[in-house]
Amino acid sequence: MPTPIPSRDADVKLWRNARLVTIASPSVEPIENGVVVTSGERIVFAGAASEAPDIAGAQQIDLGGRLVTPALIDCHTHIVHGGNRAREFEMRLDGASYVEIAKAGGGIVSTVRATRALSVEELVEQALPRLDTLLGEGLGTIEIKSGYGLSIEAELNMLRAARALGHRRAVRVVTSYLGAHATPEEYRGRNADYLDEVVLPGLKAAHAEGLVDAVDGFCEGIAFSPEEIARVFDLALELGLPVKLHAEQLSHLGGTRLAAHYGALSADHLEYIDDADAQAMATASTIAVLLPGAFYAIRETHKPDVAALRRHGVPIAVATDCNPGTSPLTSLLLGMNMAATLFGLTVTECLAGTTRIAARALGLLEQTGTLEADKSADFAVWNCASVAELTYRIGFNPLHRRIFKGKAT
Amino acid sequence: MPTPIPSRDADVKLWRNARLVTIASPSVEPIENGVVVTSGERIVFAGAASEAPDIAGAQQIDLGGRLVTPALIDCHTHIVHGGNRAREFEMRLDGASYVEIAKAGGGIVSTVRATRALSVEELVEQALPRLDTLLGEGLGTIEIKSGYGLSIEAELNMLRAARALGHRRAVRVVTSYLGAHATPEEYRGRNADYLDEVVLPGLKAAHAEGLVDAVDGFCEGIAFSPEEIARVFDLALELGLPVKLHAEQLSHLGGTRLAAHYGALSADHLEYIDDADAQAMATASTIAVLLPGAFYAIRETHKPDVAALRRHGVPIAVATDCNPGTSPLTSLLLGMNMAATLFGLTVTECLAGTTRIAARALGLLEQTGTLEADKSADFAVWNCASVAELTYRIGFNPLHRRIFKGKAT
Ligand SMILES: [Zn+2]
Ligand SMILES: [Zn+2]
Repeated sequence: MPTPIPSRDADVKLWRNARLVTIASPSVEPIENGVVVTSGERIVFAGAASEAPDIAGAQQIDLGGRLVTPALIDCHTHIVHGGNRAREFEMRLDGASYVEIAKAGGGIVSTVRATRALSVEELVEQALPRLDTLLGEGLGTIEIKSGYGLSIEAELNMLRAARALGHRRAVRVVTSYLGAHATPEEYRGRNADYLDEVVLPGLKAAHAEGLVDAVDGFCEGIAFSPEEIARVFDLALELGLPVKLHAEQLSHLGGTRLAAHYGALSADHLEYIDDADAQAMATASTIAVLLPGAFYAIRETHKPDVAALRRHGVPIAVATDCNPGTSPLTSLLLGMNMAATLFGLTVTECLAGTTRIAARALGLLEQTGTLEADKSADFAVWNCASVAELTYRIGFNPLHRRIFKGKAT
Repeated sequence: MPTPIPSRDADVKLWRNARLVTIASPSVEPIENGVVVTSGERIVFAGAASEAPDIAGAQQIDLGGRLVTPALIDCHTHIVHGGNRAREFEMRLDGASYVEIAKAGGGIVSTVRATRALSVEELVEQALPRLDTLLGEGLGTIEIKSGYGLSIEAELNMLRAARALGHRRAVRVVTSYLGAHATPEEYRGRNADYLDEVVLPGLKAAHAEGLVDAVDGFCEGIAFSPEEIARVFDLALELGLPVKLHAEQLSHLGGTRLAAHYGALSADHLEYIDDADAQAMATASTIAVLLPGAFYAIRETHKPDVAALRRHGVPIAVATDCNPGTSPLTSLLLGMNMAATLFGLTVTECLAGTTRIAARALGLLEQTGTLEADKSADFAVWNCASVAELTYRIGFNPLHRRIFKGKAT
């Protein structure tokens, strides 16, 4: 017999009449006549109404037979940044070369300049429309990286802005320190000095201020070598911080195996992985985070080897990579559609990849990502008949209601 | 000296403090401190404040220095239809073959079945969320096709629903009769009978009811031959109706030249056109309507020859092709981004292609598509610093306000 729950407790709620997809299991077949029972910020029960605990007298909310899933999780974003790169986008379409764009002040340099010029509050203000767009699609958790400051103070400001966003909106913000994103102008050709003087001391300072949930890097010919990334990861481990990595996006450099070697939460992008990389990730329980928005926006044609990831049982997450240069994408639903359309992910993989697996990629599966007892009551109510509709539509937002920590927002 | 306008006229309005992109010329460089003067439903003046007519005393609306463009025009959609094809989308990703999908009731047959099952009012209700999403991005005009009824009565119902949508929302609806979209089950293998018994009499009936603004067809191996389309076009001309055509989407069948021969308003899709097709279109002043959403969704790799279209001076429009099977896209801004990203259209071409050129594709350039005196006061106010931002962002809606026929909506 189900345990009765003290219904006098004013903050016990019964969200009833749902077609419930908990994602606790691999199935996305909805539980008809499902309910979610919440007590304050937490889920007490999620499942068939017939198995629900007795909570007579609790506040009831009728979800009208709508589809209910966990709130979505965007596990890889750069939404905190200054300015945009629309001018560069325009120039490239007009036929400008990279050199011409660079001469006109384009490229990542322009984002670094724009980001450094802003205060924490200004960074927050510029990020809010992007965050609000994502939240409008039922997001409950977002990862936000630094990496456009590239000086100690500017990196800290980005992370302070990320934390502030978590107070300005009803959303769980997880930060990643990405000092090793690019080498700033003033350190051009001197990566070692940049690591010594900015990235490593910046990480210590950011960690001391409680700004870092994980440590990230960009391992690529145009960024940092595996050896350089290893120095950053060594410090992360020393500080007790989990790591993750932008790896194998444009070439095969060994970043994925490095990430696996360090037991990374995730390796991200992965367009150029091989079978051995997938095997290493599987062994290390490192999540593959696919970012189809960047693949699409940079007109990449080399697709991540999804078959290898599946063969080795590497869990796959999907994220927006929202950033001003290579993925100005502020729709995780569209990210799901792109993952299906461009990479061939199934509908089930797309939803799991933005809920349960995305939570794992952030080390948050204990807290969120599925609808199960004791987790945070973060869920999305959709005007959809099936989970497939979430991924099938392009540029349509079927969200009816977003619930974060037990409260409709 | 500018003509004074009777400012006692209560419906004269001065929309001031705009960064104005009229699209009357090929330039998209905004006129700083621009104004739009409207009188009732029409534009009296659009340009620099310094050149505006004297309308002291008129109602003034401050646009806050925002970017203002003509309202967008989606010149190719199938938004009226029953059901969706999410299940089929899911099955294909799960590895099902076309035969398996057809056996499970998928394909266009399923949309025809779902569409026939609905009343006019139900068709309207199902289309409204799609229409509202498009309007939310600053749309002022939409073209809507029949083509999922495939019986006289069901085709008429689709067009009645399209007309009804124009009364339910503040939007200009332009209809196209697309009886020659597919051969229904009951006429399989009997295209000639289908034309004789349904398409041609259906067109007459629809025209008699005032439901047809243009006549469309699908010229393709899986649909109708140029000879069959010619029969439909002959009747259209007899009835005094303009024609347009789905041509060269999946193969090179000669539809584009047929369309040009009939002086078509537009030829649409065009993935497989050649140089001679582009030349024929230029000679006939037929607009090229590119539909990158369909290209993307069906994973087409053969791109329309944009260089040939430019070489011959064929004006290019961009539309969503919003339909449940091959382009469930309800964002024209995303269509613009796809046209740039996938086809290499410039930012200027993308905006002209959804305003001035789209109006030409519908034969409406006298009424809308640019901000000029005597046209309908249809414009969009954007939270953007530049026109490039409209095309650059992916899955973000910067609309501040939509004005249709002189009224904010
Ligand atoms: Zn990234
Ligand atoms: Zn079409």
